[in-house]
Amino acid sequence: MSVGKGMSEHYLDNSATTVTSENAAQKALMMMTTKYGNPSSLHKKGLEAELEINKAREIIADSLSVDADELYFTSGSTESNNTVIFGVASAKRRAGKKIVTTAIEHSSVMESLKKLENDGFEVIYLSPDENGVVPPSSFEQAVDENTILVAVMAVNNEIGSIQNIERISKIVKRKNPDVIFHCDAVQAYGKMVLKPKKYNVDTLCVSAHKVHGPKGIGALYIKKGVRIAPLIYGGEQQKKVRPGTESAPLIASFATAVEEFDIAKNREYVKSLNTYLKSELLKIDSVTINSSDDALEYVLNISVDSIKSETMLHHLEQDNVYVSSSSACAKGKKSYVLKALGLSDKLIDSSLRISFSKYNTKDDVDAFLASLKNGINTLAKSK
Amino acid sequence: MSVGKGMSEHYLDNSATTVTSENAAQKALMMMTTKYGNPSSLHKKGLEAELEINKAREIIADSLSVDADELYFTSGSTESNNTVIFGVASAKRRAGKKIVTTAIEHSSVMESLKKLENDGFEVIYLSPDENGVVPPSSFEQAVDENTILVAVMAVNNEIGSIQNIERISKIVKRKNPDVIFHCDAVQAYGKMVLKPKKYNVDTLCVSAHKVHGPKGIGALYIKKGVRIAPLIYGGEQQKKVRPGTESAPLIASFATAVEEFDIAKNREYVKSLNTYLKSELLKIDSVTINSSDDALEYVLNISVDSIKSETMLHHLEQDNVYVSSSSACAKGKKSYVLKALGLSDKLIDSSLRISFSKYNTKDDVDAFLASLKNGINTLAKSK
Repeated sequence: MSVGKGMSEHYLDNSATTVTSENAAQKALMMMTTKYGNPSSLHKKGLEAELEINKAREIIADSLSVDADELYFTSGSTESNNTVIFGVASAKRRAGKKIVTTAIEHSSVMESLKKLENDGFEVIYLSPDENGVVPPSSFEQAVDENTILVAVMAVNNEIGSIQNIERISKIVKRKNPDVIFHCDAVQAYGKMVLKPKKYNVDTLCVSAHKVHGPKGIGALYIKKGVRIAPLIYGGEQQKKVRPGTESAPLIASFATAVEEFDIAKNREYVKSLNTYLKSELLKIDSVTINSSDDALEYVLNISVDSIKSETMLHHLEQDNVYVSSSSACAKGKKSYVLKALGLSDKLIDSSLRISFSKYNTKDDVDAFLASLKNGINTLAKSK
Repeated sequence: MSVGKGMSEHYLDNSATTVTSENAAQKALMMMTTKYGNPSSLHKKGLEAELEINKAREIIADSLSVDADELYFTSGSTESNNTVIFGVASAKRRAGKKIVTTAIEHSSVMESLKKLENDGFEVIYLSPDENGVVPPSSFEQAVDENTILVAVMAVNNEIGSIQNIERISKIVKRKNPDVIFHCDAVQAYGKMVLKPKKYNVDTLCVSAHKVHGPKGIGALYIKKGVRIAPLIYGGEQQKKVRPGTESAPLIASFATAVEEFDIAKNREYVKSLNTYLKSELLKIDSVTINSSDDALEYVLNISVDSIKSETMLHHLEQDNVYVSSSSACAKGKKSYVLKALGLSDKLIDSSLRISFSKYNTKDDVDAFLASLKNGINTLAKSK
């Protein structure tokens, strides 16, 4: 991957964020300088921005096989997750005070739920198995008549484990059909086919900046008929579900990135990079692979014996190889996700996440491997 | 003003939104395609984005004479106003349940406060005089020991009236020093010098897209020591006051627009356009000027006898002249702001808002005047 000016970069941290595609970035630029009107303005300059938003909404809705009027734009999935969690808690507080989720959700789910626990809600955090998969039967046991919300991420951001959303949703709805089923699909979007309607999912969120769109924009699917109290109050925009002047440039740019999806082809391609990387890593004694073979191919979590994550990360960056130690949102804090998988502190402290995009090449993998091996040979071992 | 490709546009709706400056848009493009890292990532690609954010924060903090660590980025002022209103209500609920504001605030303030009224808070909406100015003495009477929050906009978005924030804040704090004083400064920012610290303001919000920055980003000043419950929960970003991956492209682009501020010069220039426009409008019998002479020169609200706002607006747009009938966020609903000023229904229904930017020229004003006069002569009069 050779992006930007200057030396070539080996960016293997695509679960943290991705480069905005050239077309998507150019679209944002055009919107900012040409179709700059306020989409709520009644004149032509407003209308031309509004039409771009409507088109974008159609494109993104299509990518999820949902209707355009079920899709709302937010500032990103942190906001979307908060919107659903607090919105359901507020709208359904009379129906019950129990929420079921997993122990490996994104921090924006975890922290919102902790706030609700402080407010008197009961939250069940279901444990994953050692592969990062929560057994669907756990939901069968946890969901009851007091449960108002179930929140499950489709693909984990740190290890790539895939939850079977369709099956879990079926079990949950059978147990209690009034439960709102929310899916954080940020790491799955653009990488696997997602069909929230088919899965009987009520709300689902995706983020532009994980799929070569810009940072600062996300889409939230809310199934027709599902009522959620708004998180934000204001003008008439987006049916008052999410008011505020829409960022037409980011929305149109997001849609441009979505138009460039080629899910099957890219997954096959990334799988080949992942397979190659894994086969080479298996030859290195000091490397442990933490992601299971069933994980989504875009993410590979490993540990390097006795070398702290940050030490290796900073070694790699000197060779312009970029990976992460854990979720970027955690800024270096110990991973609760790896802990929930039952990994030892030694493995957690030395873990690295390699995450791919369609723009990566075998050259990036080779650069990573070369730098990793060099690091293993030269870096000071931790006790 | 000749922006975009094709025919020249006379965009006089700059209170609704502004064109993003070429430099600001190019900055966003560069960030999206080159410095695309996640600002929370621990490697160099993350750091280069974080450094851009830090620099932007300094630039925007400087423009408000506040410290950089008192500034938080949000998706815009709708979110900022919600953050302050719900955050203060939550953090100070034990101190009291009374909030004081004006009858002419932005809808994101109005609707948040309505929600709090439903939750048991008492909200006092102080009336403006016929010029759109709320007498500071009204605050003296309204604020008491139960008051936890006072929210006052610096400049009104529909008529340009200026509230004396410094004086109001002094009166409020004298009456009750524990009150959080919030200022929605969206329409004042970049047009007048703002010094929240000097005014003893606790929280203040500004928006990029009103000052030739991009849509989807705003800044919220929270004075050191002022505690507000977060609206959004998640990762470690922005000291957990506003988590979520920062939109580094929008933040850097916003700062680029702020670097282009030339407040005194631009205000003098816009004043000359406003003065010229007013002098020509005074020659037209059927025009009433609703904005007072003390209003900020960037906004001029008028009414055209017996011609409905929307009819005239659509006439004007045929000549590529863009003005608005009221706040864009209201999407054509009857203006509660003009009603609060005591304007007759006839004047409200025929009102137009002309709002300037530094990019407007005398040519834009002449195009507006020519099209307006033509409209007055040809359009069907309403009863």
